[in-house]
Amino acid sequence: MPARGFTFGRTEEFTHPDSVRASITEFFSTLIFVFAGEGSVLALGKMYGSTTTAASGLVAVAVAHALALFVAVAIGLNVSGGHVNPAITFGALVGGRISLLRSVLYWVSQLLGAIVASLLLRLTTDGMRPVGFTVASGVGEWHALVLEIVMTFGLMYTVYATTIDPKRGNLGTIAPLAIGFIVGANILAGGPFDGASMNPARAFGPALVGWRWNHHWIYWVGPFVGAGLAGLIYEFVLIPAEIPRTHQPLAPEDY
Amino acid sequence: MPARGFTFGRTEEFTHPDSVRASITEFFSTLIFVFAGEGSVLALGKMYGSTTTAASGLVAVAVAHALALFVAVAIGLNVSGGHVNPAITFGALVGGRISLLRSVLYWVSQLLGAIVASLLLRLTTDGMRPVGFTVASGVGEWHALVLEIVMTFGLMYTVYATTIDPKRGNLGTIAPLAIGFIVGANILAGGPFDGASMNPARAFGPALVGWRWNHHWIYWVGPFVGAGLAGLIYEFVLIPAEIPRTHQPLAPEDY
Amino acid sequence: MPARGFTFGRTEEFTHPDSVRASITEFFSTLIFVFAGEGSVLALGKMYGSTTTAASGLVAVAVAHALALFVAVAIGLNVSGGHVNPAITFGALVGGRISLLRSVLYWVSQLLGAIVASLLLRLTTDGMRPVGFTVASGVGEWHALVLEIVMTFGLMYTVYATTIDPKRGNLGTIAPLAIGFIVGANILAGGPFDGASMNPARAFGPALVGWRWNHHWIYWVGPFVGAGLAGLIYEFVLIPAEIPRTHQPLAPEDY
Amino acid sequence: MPARGFTFGRTEEFTHPDSVRASITEFFSTLIFVFAGEGSVLALGKMYGSTTTAASGLVAVAVAHALALFVAVAIGLNVSGGHVNPAITFGALVGGRISLLRSVLYWVSQLLGAIVASLLLRLTTDGMRPVGFTVASGVGEWHALVLEIVMTFGLMYTVYATTIDPKRGNLGTIAPLAIGFIVGANILAGGPFDGASMNPARAFGPALVGWRWNHHWIYWVGPFVGAGLAGLIYEFVLIPAEIPRTHQPLAPEDY
Repeated sequence: MPARGFTFGRTEEFTHPDSVRASITEFFSTLIFVFAGEGSVLALGKMYGSTTTAASGLVAVAVAHALALFVAVAIGLNVSGGHVNPAITFGALVGGRISLLRSVLYWVSQLLGAIVASLLLRLTTDGMRPVGFTVASGVGEWHALVLEIVMTFGLMYTVYATTIDPKRGNLGTIAPLAIGFIVGANILAGGPFDGASMNPARAFGPALVGWRWNHHWIYWVGPFVGAGLAGLIYEFVLIPAEIPRTHQPLAPEDY
Repeated sequence: MPARGFTFGRTEEFTHPDSVRASITEFFSTLIFVFAGEGSVLALGKMYGSTTTAASGLVAVAVAHALALFVAVAIGLNVSGGHVNPAITFGALVGGRISLLRSVLYWVSQLLGAIVASLLLRLTTDGMRPVGFTVASGVGEWHALVLEIVMTFGLMYTVYATTIDPKRGNLGTIAPLAIGFIVGANILAGGPFDGASMNPARAFGPALVGWRWNHHWIYWVGPFVGAGLAGLIYEFVLIPAEIPRTHQPLAPEDY
Repeated sequence: MPARGFTFGRTEEFTHPDSVRASITEFFSTLIFVFAGEGSVLALGKMYGSTTTAASGLVAVAVAHALALFVAVAIGLNVSGGHVNPAITFGALVGGRISLLRSVLYWVSQLLGAIVASLLLRLTTDGMRPVGFTVASGVGEWHALVLEIVMTFGLMYTVYATTIDPKRGNLGTIAPLAIGFIVGANILAGGPFDGASMNPARAFGPALVGWRWNHHWIYWVGPFVGAGLAGLIYEFVLIPAEIPRTHQPLAPEDY
Repeated sequence: MPARGFTFGRTEEFTHPDSVRASITEFFSTLIFVFAGEGSVLALGKMYGSTTTAASGLVAVAVAHALALFVAVAIGLNVSGGHVNPAITFGALVGGRISLLRSVLYWVSQLLGAIVASLLLRLTTDGMRPVGFTVASGVGEWHALVLEIVMTFGLMYTVYATTIDPKRGNLGTIAPLAIGFIVGANILAGGPFDGASMNPARAFGPALVGWRWNHHWIYWVGPFVGAGLAGLIYEFVLIPAEIPRTHQPLAPEDY
């Protein structure tokens, strides 16, 4: 895939062993991430009877997401690209780093992983209703949308800088840490305002299993816009055209 | 060991210097991990008179386990494989990455390390009774079992992806971080429900020294089932048969 | 740039693609860092009605800064040097590792990034006034100045040791973690006294958008003095003259 | 230095540029570590009027030490070996990895760094008396001694496994993280009992400047015994005699 830009992909991708393996990886990575992330919210509910907004609870939720996303990206990076997030897949699609067909495979896998994680949480917590995300009282819906856009922009920018940029060098070794930790930092900032999702799968699984759809569109539109913007800017402004692409891209079909 | 599957091992392993060294390493790694992990629970008991369930206490326990397990794996990885956990050894056995004889050596070393750590804690805390794990009130025993299965599945999957998968590349450098941090994240999610052990040695040492056996079987059956499942799935589904095995396996006899 | 010491730079730097790209990188890195850092302070304000001084709030703010600065440095290191801080740029200038012209470009980019981050925070929080930094009651202004000098000295020393020192070896891989984490540790120590800024851009953006200028000079003079001292000492005392400079310097013009 | 065991060293070491540079590095690393570590204790005093024993305060202190020690080791590792701790230097001496003369240089540098850090804290906090370490009420002096021995054994074992063991491989890259994080984990376990020092310089500087000498001998004898034991066991049991020593030892004179 030497040329920049959109690719449709070949239909054989749906059955090729590499695609199947990458999809399974996205499924398990997203399952592990959503289980620990949403689980940390339910854990506060178990301890306090309701989800708390105290600083110590915010730290618990942010740390759980930071650590679990780091792990989810690390265990998938070299197989599927370690997206674990439909918005990241969209940003990579916009930047021309993954084909549309493979993106569809990833999206399905990520959503299934998030749904299975939410079902397992509902089972193992003796029936607690997953919480997911909602906009805090006193925060406008449009403000929350901008918040998701800004935070996901930072996340996608980090993914591009640490796993795609040909100048990343040996920093690729700590890419999963950077990706997990920017989400942790953003939760500490945005959590009390709109929950700080940055990930439609992370929002969708608990919303479906807990059947809570308030403001749900924000957690799709915001991340997709933010990741798409970051993909375009990083790909076409920050990566110099004259430097040849490295061959360790986001998704294996680029090898 | 080119072929996949179960191996019994040679009886010389019990006396070979490499096996002895690996067993000593497992002993000290487990000792250091259980001392800090169980110690963090006793520290809360010292401060509050009883083990707390506040969010800040949960963060303290989760961070202690995450950091200590990271270190315990890091200091053992290149000598013994850095299992520090009988369930991980079982998952590696099921995947054909360690022989049965060496597994027995590891299990004995891990349990001894956990027992010595618990005895040292009892001594240095002026006789506090180790707490170990139990199922929280309102949580069914079978739900706790599924919880341990799911969380240990994620742990073993992480071990496989970051220390065995031939495609792991330079992510092997941060493997101990991933292994420690998925346990930290899972404690933030599962801690208030069943303590989130994922490790029979971590549960057994304090149970023996503190003589608390409520629900103890869960902390053996759950981790073994979860790690066994992950070992089978990763080994036979996610590692392509045509790619030759790397020669940096979980246990040194594979060199 | 074989000789040590001050360089003015060539005016072409203002238009060269490398300089432009480095400036854009500094802009986005500082934006992402200040958004999460100042955002974590506003998040406490949202939860408690006022910025808290409880230990759990201090941990939240310190962790947010540590994680976000790690990421901001990681995503910029190999493009711009990952300064994200006018004081770091000044320390590199004093040590002869960046030209004056490029420093001016960086300073403008960093300040713009901090201002845009503060404006976005004001927007997404429905108009909350950014807080920035001030000296706690009971702490003398000159004591706060020394505090900023000491803490920024440690930060610049860390930048030099992990990204410039020819003896750094493979520790360069974890340089961004060290740079982010020393700021997190220093916030846990200095936060309750003067906020622990160590970064004039981090202080200036919220001060401008929130229009709070109490003690503001401290957050410029302290970091510049501390970073300048560290740059001089590390460059001229700790790096042996006989060892040839490596060619991975702080800023790309040194290639 | 091909043979194992004790070395006295050459007196030229006191004036050789490498020794001077290593001593300066130990001075600054210890200063930065003690400033943030002891500073985090004083920060709690500033916020609450007295040093707290709440879980959130324990997390703040443990995280500050973990992050700051990681950085202090990272910035010194390739120049001085990154001991930052007289007990680590003693363990390396016992294992034959550093000469006695160089050990004396390191000890003086480490103690001076800790004293200057404590003086700077006293100055910048408007005269707060450094707190240092003491044994909690209800904890026997001999129990605290064993606690320091066990915890420092784990720390020295980690130093040996990640920076000296010829089998450490690419894990050397994350050695400073392991060294800092085992101290953080041990503080979460031992903090409420005896403060969890594991480092005579960390204890001595604040004791001198704050003039608090209760139980002070424990914080010298415990760490020296624990580190000495770990040095002996790791050097003579866990490192196979037949494997040639690597040439990246704890201290530069071994090159």
